[in-house]
Amino acid sequence: MNVEKFLNEWKKIIDDALEKLLPSEDTFPSNIHKAIRHTVLNEGKRIRPILTLTTHELVGGDSTSIIPFACGIELIHAYSLIHDDLPAMDNSDFRRGKPSCHKAFGEAIALLTGDALLTLAFQVMADPALCKNHSPLSIVKAIHVVAQAAGLQGMVGGQTVDIETQGKSFDLPLLEYIHTHKTGALILSAIKSGAILGGAQEDALEALTKYGKMIGLAFQITDDILDVIGSKKDLGKTTGSDEMLGKATYPNLLGLKESQKRVQELTQHAEEALSQFGPNAEPLKQIALYLCERRQ
Amino acid sequence: MNVEKFLNEWKKIIDDALEKLLPSEDTFPSNIHKAIRHTVLNEGKRIRPILTLTTHELVGGDSTSIIPFACGIELIHAYSLIHDDLPAMDNSDFRRGKPSCHKAFGEAIALLTGDALLTLAFQVMADPALCKNHSPLSIVKAIHVVAQAAGLQGMVGGQTVDIETQGKSFDLPLLEYIHTHKTGALILSAIKSGAILGGAQEDALEALTKYGKMIGLAFQITDDILDVIGSKKDLGKTTGSDEMLGKATYPNLLGLKESQKRVQELTQHAEEALSQFGPNAEPLKQIALYLCERRQ
Repeated sequence: MNVEKFLNEWKKIIDDALEKLLPSEDTFPSNIHKAIRHTVLNEGKRIRPILTLTTHELVGGDSTSIIPFACGIELIHAYSLIHDDLPAMDNSDFRRGKPSCHKAFGEAIALLTGDALLTLAFQVMADPALCKNHSPLSIVKAIHVVAQAAGLQGMVGGQTVDIETQGKSFDLPLLEYIHTHKTGALILSAIKSGAILGGAQEDALEALTKYGKMIGLAFQITDDILDVIGSKKDLGKTTGSDEMLGKATYPNLLGLKESQKRVQELTQHAEEALSQFGPNAEPLKQIALYLCERRQ
Repeated sequence: MNVEKFLNEWKKIIDDALEKLLPSEDTFPSNIHKAIRHTVLNEGKRIRPILTLTTHELVGGDSTSIIPFACGIELIHAYSLIHDDLPAMDNSDFRRGKPSCHKAFGEAIALLTGDALLTLAFQVMADPALCKNHSPLSIVKAIHVVAQAAGLQGMVGGQTVDIETQGKSFDLPLLEYIHTHKTGALILSAIKSGAILGGAQEDALEALTKYGKMIGLAFQITDDILDVIGSKKDLGKTTGSDEMLGKATYPNLLGLKESQKRVQELTQHAEEALSQFGPNAEPLKQIALYLCERRQ
């Protein structure tokens, strides 16, 4: 399969769904609606919702019905980028080639835009219309999994340790805590929620959890590597910022070569975790490989 | 009935539930867990969860089973106070007699604490354990109502206009927009979600919605009035800050007397909306009266 074509087709479907889901720019109060569209409608890869939909199909679900739910996970990702970029956090001026939200709209609106997106995510995921095609129990469970992954036991917890570790010494266990929580948890929950909504059996859920953990960690290590060797043009944001901020990263701790080797190992383990699904798992395997080899 | 005793008994139950629900201060990473407990465990009136539980009982539900859900709404309220107090927003140093979250823990942790509480709220509301006693469909619907009220179409929308209107001229429709969205929406959703989880019929839900709208608006006008005439000791925060910030408030637009009259009218309408419930509605009526006459 051509993975880039596969991802692009999904990206278009998700972009269209996001376009429809988000209120128009002239909705009152218009400034925050402009900020929301500025942030969400962009060149994002949409990896998280694509993982939700691909996993959902792998376990036998019809992905069309859960596109809004998958978009909810992308909204959580978008909110986290806005708040991470704020001056009190990473103080980043650029994101995906555009001024970051607070640079374009001011700090107050950026803060509120993040809050709005996080809340909208749960509003979309708990849309009662979803109950037409899915058991409400599976929806409650899927929301719970995503909320857990986005909060203290996941993304917010990881981001907290990331901020608190800046400029300080760190070791591998702490670094792995940051990466698996800050980035890995939401990616894993994208996969798990897709599986739960598709009625996955326990053994399938276990295998997919293993796969999700591996690619989640590999994803963040790759991000760290790209912050060192990537180009600003490809990434749409300032590179070298991790080193400047004294961030806990794999290249800082293990060096580039060892970090790249770790990504390859994790990707291989991720592929192996999918053995029970046979050839049907090809899309998820190809996504793992793509994420490992990406340049942006 | 003695409404203060009634509210105090409920407050104790909710405080106990929050105490158990929140991770301990020494949970890693400990700083954010300290900030969460600093913010949530305090002298808050717990009006929102009490409204959820009281409404739930009025429509025939057993409130014990939804205490965690009701706590979720209190967590959303707590998050909103943290983010509202931030320097980019109202820049408030005190909250309920204690240093505000960013004063005590710094801006980065305060931002993350708000994010953590908002996310935890949905995690708690979507706890699959709740499905033992309630239909999963009613849970999905209740979460949806709360998310809608907390986001762009509610609290975040109102807060956005509140911030953007500071120091500018405003009229009554704009002021009412701010109040009904910034404060009223979450209060209304506390009532509606309690009713939905209790299996309320359409006409009951309609009457409770009317009641909720009235007390929601009355609540914020009273807040504005107390910002003018209240004492810092009673309120635990700096008074007169609305005027200093040039905020859109009822006393600023209509004067104190007219604002007080408006609160009384709204409270009366709120009581009238409950007529179909007969004497069972006494607790909700007494809460409306209490909120209208409160000094903090």
